[in-house]
Amino acid sequence: MRGVVMHAPGDVRVEQREDPRIIHPTDAVIRLSATCVCGSDLWPYRGVETVGGPTPMGHEYVGVVEEVGSEVTSIQPGQFVVGSFFASDNTCEICRAGYQPSCVHRVGMGALGCQAERLRVPLADGTLVATPGTPDDDLIPSLLAASDVLGTGWFGAVAAQAGPGRTVAVVGDGAVGLLAVLAARQLGAERIIAMSRHEPRQKLAAEFGATDIVTERGDEGVARIKELTDGLGAHSVIEAVGTQESMMQAIRSTRPGGHVGFVGVSHDVALEGQELFFSHVHLHGGPAPVRQYLPELIDLIWQRKIDPGKVFDLTLPLDQAAEAYRAMDERRAIKALLRV
Amino acid sequence: MRGVVMHAPGDVRVEQREDPRIIHPTDAVIRLSATCVCGSDLWPYRGVETVGGPTPMGHEYVGVVEEVGSEVTSIQPGQFVVGSFFASDNTCEICRAGYQPSCVHRVGMGALGCQAERLRVPLADGTLVATPGTPDDDLIPSLLAASDVLGTGWFGAVAAQAGPGRTVAVVGDGAVGLLAVLAARQLGAERIIAMSRHEPRQKLAAEFGATDIVTERGDEGVARIKELTDGLGAHSVIEAVGTQESMMQAIRSTRPGGHVGFVGVSHDVALEGQELFFSHVHLHGGPAPVRQYLPELIDLIWQRKIDPGKVFDLTLPLDQAAEAYRAMDERRAIKALLRV
Repeated sequence: MRGVVMHAPGDVRVEQREDPRIIHPTDAVIRLSATCVCGSDLWPYRGVETVGGPTPMGHEYVGVVEEVGSEVTSIQPGQFVVGSFFASDNTCEICRAGYQPSCVHRVGMGALGCQAERLRVPLADGTLVATPGTPDDDLIPSLLAASDVLGTGWFGAVAAQAGPGRTVAVVGDGAVGLLAVLAARQLGAERIIAMSRHEPRQKLAAEFGATDIVTERGDEGVARIKELTDGLGAHSVIEAVGTQESMMQAIRSTRPGGHVGFVGVSHDVALEGQELFFSHVHLHGGPAPVRQYLPELIDLIWQRKIDPGKVFDLTLPLDQAAEAYRAMDERRAIKALLRV
Repeated sequence: MRGVVMHAPGDVRVEQREDPRIIHPTDAVIRLSATCVCGSDLWPYRGVETVGGPTPMGHEYVGVVEEVGSEVTSIQPGQFVVGSFFASDNTCEICRAGYQPSCVHRVGMGALGCQAERLRVPLADGTLVATPGTPDDDLIPSLLAASDVLGTGWFGAVAAQAGPGRTVAVVGDGAVGLLAVLAARQLGAERIIAMSRHEPRQKLAAEFGATDIVTERGDEGVARIKELTDGLGAHSVIEAVGTQESMMQAIRSTRPGGHVGFVGVSHDVALEGQELFFSHVHLHGGPAPVRQYLPELIDLIWQRKIDPGKVFDLTLPLDQAAEAYRAMDERRAIKALLRV
């Protein structure tokens, strides 16, 4: 089969890879309908993370089940499924508490290379959720978004306790930040401040429910959030970047007693203890338990109540993955979908 | 009046200080019954924090109101009162959300020097809570504990979401750590693991409700907590020290999705973003909103349901403050009470 392989920073190729097959009786093999490039794929692409030799890429996927192992009971060949970027048993104590990416049997899907024609999904019963039927073609981008960026933005909003009566600020205007706006709106937040200086992203943020746009960053961005919140800061701040600057912008934009939900994968971040201590914020985040939210998110998409697929502003065939990476790296695209 | 003044690390003296008086119409002046030395007073005593010239010391106090300003309405001369180590208006939005130490009008009581015969308390209505009557002498240590260490341990337990069905671990066996054990028990925690290698403190922890004692520290301590919790870590961990080692011990002892309540004042702590991200813990802490808990804590003490005053294992007259500091510095005493 064909699949995306990164050879070095900036060097992404579509190559022949070995066909996946059932290895464990709890596996499924799916034929992908679509996959996509994640903001976190850009870290190795930009050389910020090391690329240790040719590496299959991608961790977002939707598709049709082709085959299941002998112990799989809840998923059948022919079903259209969405899965999370962490395979999880969904039965251990950590999963039952809602933290599937920390499942005691977790498998990171990135290692399996989901930007490909076919994919082995471990722990299929605990990882995959079937849609009510075969989706209309126009629903596929939204269902694909649910497998990571929507679920991640959703977790950010939940971790930040976005909800009725609360003012929410979102740091980061990538797909996750934009979908955190959508999530905050769905969760009933009163006021949603998107921090963005890019017009197309501001427009999408407004479409997803942002009530205010702040273009300033860093300490100036913090000052602007304080101005908009009687000098106190927002109740809920979602961090969707992962840098030192964005984390500090998030923490400092939050009022004492408020909540920071951080979902940008941290890179070279060090939080100074004393500032955190006196900030009085709640801090929670990490890899999103997408699996926990999938049934609800699929339902919202199926009923066409939300349209998270709008974050895909570039659609290319799998073979043009290199251009998809380039477009996202150069910020010409918010997020690139690869049709398989 | 006499009061404790620190001149340099290790140099604590009882000297004549100016008598406090009403400055603002919202002030009260109280005559102290007792005050005490805090673990955080040891930071400058040990030279870890700078002492910038002669500094009045202390932020814990109970006593009798002598005089109130013209705008004080809820407190009267003659009443016995307990106050927090932060004066707060208790009416602003931050106070109403329960975060009085971050009150928009807060005053740190440490700057006023509470290890003294008399004390000016700003924002008396929002800061002081009167007891139901003049307390019996044997209740004074417990009421004094409520002004900081009990309230701080309580906040640690609340921030860590100690409660029914949860396993709680406490890092730190100073007065705050020991009272966090008491708080966790009061909040209904099922299992409470005190981390301590000092026999008298282990005994007091057990008396306050600890079900298990772990003597190992650092990574070995973490391994022991995991052993006791099916390899997962505790649901709730209270950090009551404030060092890099104790913070990492707390975070690593917590299961994914669990809660860390950190109340040890942070010194030279830097939390690495990626480890925090993948730990999946909730992190909350800072200066305890003692004022929020005072009515409940005074009630529990008044009804003799809890006896937090047991943390005072040394009682000296105010004049012997230097010996009180020495005894705590050398860990001969858990906490020293100064009778005024």
